[in-house]
Amino acid sequence: MKLNADLGESFGRWQSTTDADVMPYIDQANVACGYHAGDPKVLAHTIGLVKQYGVSLGAHPSYPDLQGFGRRSMRMPADELIPLIHAQIAIVEGMAKCQHLALDYVKPHGALYNDMMLYPQVYEDVVTAISQYHAPLPLMIQALANNDFHIELAKKQGVTLLFEAFADRRYTANGYLMARTNEGAVLDADHALAQAKALIDDGCVIADDGKRIALRADTLCVHGDTPSALSMLTQIRDYLDSR
Amino acid sequence: MKLNADLGESFGRWQSTTDADVMPYIDQANVACGYHAGDPKVLAHTIGLVKQYGVSLGAHPSYPDLQGFGRRSMRMPADELIPLIHAQIAIVEGMAKCQHLALDYVKPHGALYNDMMLYPQVYEDVVTAISQYHAPLPLMIQALANNDFHIELAKKQGVTLLFEAFADRRYTANGYLMARTNEGAVLDADHALAQAKALIDDGCVIADDGKRIALRADTLCVHGDTPSALSMLTQIRDYLDSR
Amino acid sequence: MKLNADLGESFGRWQSTTDADVMPYIDQANVACGYHAGDPKVLAHTIGLVKQYGVSLGAHPSYPDLQGFGRRSMRMPADELIPLIHAQIAIVEGMAKCQHLALDYVKPHGALYNDMMLYPQVYEDVVTAISQYHAPLPLMIQALANNDFHIELAKKQGVTLLFEAFADRRYTANGYLMARTNEGAVLDADHALAQAKALIDDGCVIADDGKRIALRADTLCVHGDTPSALSMLTQIRDYLDSR
Amino acid sequence: MKLNADLGESFGRWQSTTDADVMPYIDQANVACGYHAGDPKVLAHTIGLVKQYGVSLGAHPSYPDLQGFGRRSMRMPADELIPLIHAQIAIVEGMAKCQHLALDYVKPHGALYNDMMLYPQVYEDVVTAISQYHAPLPLMIQALANNDFHIELAKKQGVTLLFEAFADRRYTANGYLMARTNEGAVLDADHALAQAKALIDDGCVIADDGKRIALRADTLCVHGDTPSALSMLTQIRDYLDSR
Repeated sequence: MKLNADLGESFGRWQSTTDADVMPYIDQANVACGYHAGDPKVLAHTIGLVKQYGVSLGAHPSYPDLQGFGRRSMRMPADELIPLIHAQIAIVEGMAKCQHLALDYVKPHGALYNDMMLYPQVYEDVVTAISQYHAPLPLMIQALANNDFHIELAKKQGVTLLFEAFADRRYTANGYLMARTNEGAVLDADHALAQAKALIDDGCVIADDGKRIALRADTLCVHGDTPSALSMLTQIRDYLDSR
Repeated sequence: MKLNADLGESFGRWQSTTDADVMPYIDQANVACGYHAGDPKVLAHTIGLVKQYGVSLGAHPSYPDLQGFGRRSMRMPADELIPLIHAQIAIVEGMAKCQHLALDYVKPHGALYNDMMLYPQVYEDVVTAISQYHAPLPLMIQALANNDFHIELAKKQGVTLLFEAFADRRYTANGYLMARTNEGAVLDADHALAQAKALIDDGCVIADDGKRIALRADTLCVHGDTPSALSMLTQIRDYLDSR
Repeated sequence: MKLNADLGESFGRWQSTTDADVMPYIDQANVACGYHAGDPKVLAHTIGLVKQYGVSLGAHPSYPDLQGFGRRSMRMPADELIPLIHAQIAIVEGMAKCQHLALDYVKPHGALYNDMMLYPQVYEDVVTAISQYHAPLPLMIQALANNDFHIELAKKQGVTLLFEAFADRRYTANGYLMARTNEGAVLDADHALAQAKALIDDGCVIADDGKRIALRADTLCVHGDTPSALSMLTQIRDYLDSR
Repeated sequence: MKLNADLGESFGRWQSTTDADVMPYIDQANVACGYHAGDPKVLAHTIGLVKQYGVSLGAHPSYPDLQGFGRRSMRMPADELIPLIHAQIAIVEGMAKCQHLALDYVKPHGALYNDMMLYPQVYEDVVTAISQYHAPLPLMIQALANNDFHIELAKKQGVTLLFEAFADRRYTANGYLMARTNEGAVLDADHALAQAKALIDDGCVIADDGKRIALRADTLCVHGDTPSALSMLTQIRDYLDSR
């Protein structure tokens, strides 16, 4: 089980200071490509950190929405979405090569990620974008109770999938995350650590209806933007390293 | 002598329709990278045209200024300008590879081009950006009466230069273009064709003071955005092909 | 019956040239506020035209999406959408006052307009934005077969409505427009003129199922961005003036 | 002597948290208009704070450069700069009116402010923008050793000036600020408080050459974005209140 985090989410003068804090504990960095965060200077700096810490590099493409931080769903057709994703992968890939670093995978960001998991058409457009990119890049998506649709379509297009799960979010019975607006949607530190351990050891979580669901996850999405998030991250890291 | 033109300068709904008209007559396409024009969808389409017509592909990076079309000078330090140029080259390079096309050279756009020719520091930053890019790419700059400074600095950094001249603009004695605001700064069709022939055959132009200046040019910058510009372009092309 | 058109939709170097052509024939100008088109310089120029032709001035607010020309639906909560609309109204109002012109009404643009007509929550947010604006401004919406919901909610918030209909688009039985992707969705010049006359004289259109539906319209939305659109516009204008 | 501070400089998810901390101690809030910072939601929130604390409201227009936070000089002609300033004033004015608040003055931001003080043409364009705005608004500029040029031009155009000085920056002999890159350009807390007192009591500062220069200041520019800046601000406030 790997740990992945969203990084490089500063923009211009607005600096997020947690990147260097998180780096020592993660395996995979999802790096903002400039459309929801991450201007070119930030991108160069973040890639430098990724290299310094020997972390795997992922492009984190988004809808084009700085003000909404890529969290507002935008309806766009394939002939807009596919080049939009290509452009963002290309920025990270080319700038990483300037630091002698290769791009390893792609994980869509925010509303694009959510839409990809909710709407088959968006998922298909994302997979097509990845399959048409000039270099083969795995696509990171959400582990659900049933990913058959996602696996089949990716296979047809020759795209490798990485599955991620979440330590600190409560799941519904089908493996989706409970909406943040619901009571109890975000787990406290103890429950999050327990859920992480269940995912790591048993490949499962307990959903909101009390039933156990199996989730095949390759990587856990973690955060480091608050002291408690960072503390949870280091505990999950310690647990993984001690096994 | 090659012919180069600025292309891919549509954005969203605002479509420039001249790209396909110009393509048959040029050798090199300077393709907008999204910062002064050219969103990802436009970029994908333009690269497709470049491929279809077998034209050489150049990245045309700019200051980040859609509203000003990259024509407003912006003062920015090297640690902002260099990644800004890298990001723009990377977009074109990566998206071109998706169409099995290689990027051939870089020509800065608009105010960035002018600043590069006017201010040694900006030129040095541009050359550094090119030299630090992961792939060796020639840099297209303006042929002046004396390019010793440009040649020496580029050599030191291992950057190959391409020199361009202008058919339809009157030159001052040092090889700069007369400002557009001056009377007679833009040549009519007959004078432009004559100047193109002088550049092609003799490597020189007649400056505004009536003196002949030698300009070592590898390529002529041409336009196709008006019927008369397109007509001039086809005449220059015919002249080149008939030699 | 008035005629309204979307204007001021240039941006930077990308100039739409039809504004001055359309002005003599319309009563109401829906002026882009800078978020889908219309930078401040364009806005100042467009307001000048509105004043010169003595046309009624409308603000035409949009989702913040230059690349998509405001035609891509964006999901945003009320606490983002309401200030977004206020900001756009405020720009037009303040800049119009600089030319001694008053703002007369508001018509949402593109995807925001469509979402307002499709989703009660978006409509409510738009009406709330208008009602909270410091000056009372009528809101232009689409005339449907049944606008009871719209009328009631606007009344509750003290907002006056203007209803618009379309000459050149085929209607479905409930008064919505047939999607452009459908065969026959856009009427040819003769049918469009006939539909305009039916709307003007009888307050009705013939829907795609052949049935007559009553549409209470205060204004017809017209275009002038093609020669045939401009010709249709002048014919409708002539018809109105000759009654 | 008033105290003024730059506020509302969040954008989207990037939240500056100091606004509410600073509000109790200042008299005038220079509110970002969306072009270097401050999206419409932020703007509505900031205006709410301005109203709550009974502070005077200023528009803080900028070059259009989110990534550079308005700190990169951009060369633009009067017919672009004037509507750009109008648009930004209009947003703040209109949105303030929605909260029953009036706009009190204008202070240009960042590079636009610096350019205004350095280049007579930029100053003239700014003054023209203010004079052409539909409501009379004082313009806040920097108090120099000699502001004769500024006063005369403003008078000719009927624009009232407000002069500001800086507590924590060392001055050169002509009343400009020493560049931040110079040793000793930023004063420590003790020297800043002393300089504030000299400005308040005697209308003067000691320049870097040791000579006393008279500065006619109506307001001191203060900051609150670090604990030490906030501490300095409260001390200056206390000193003013105790006189």
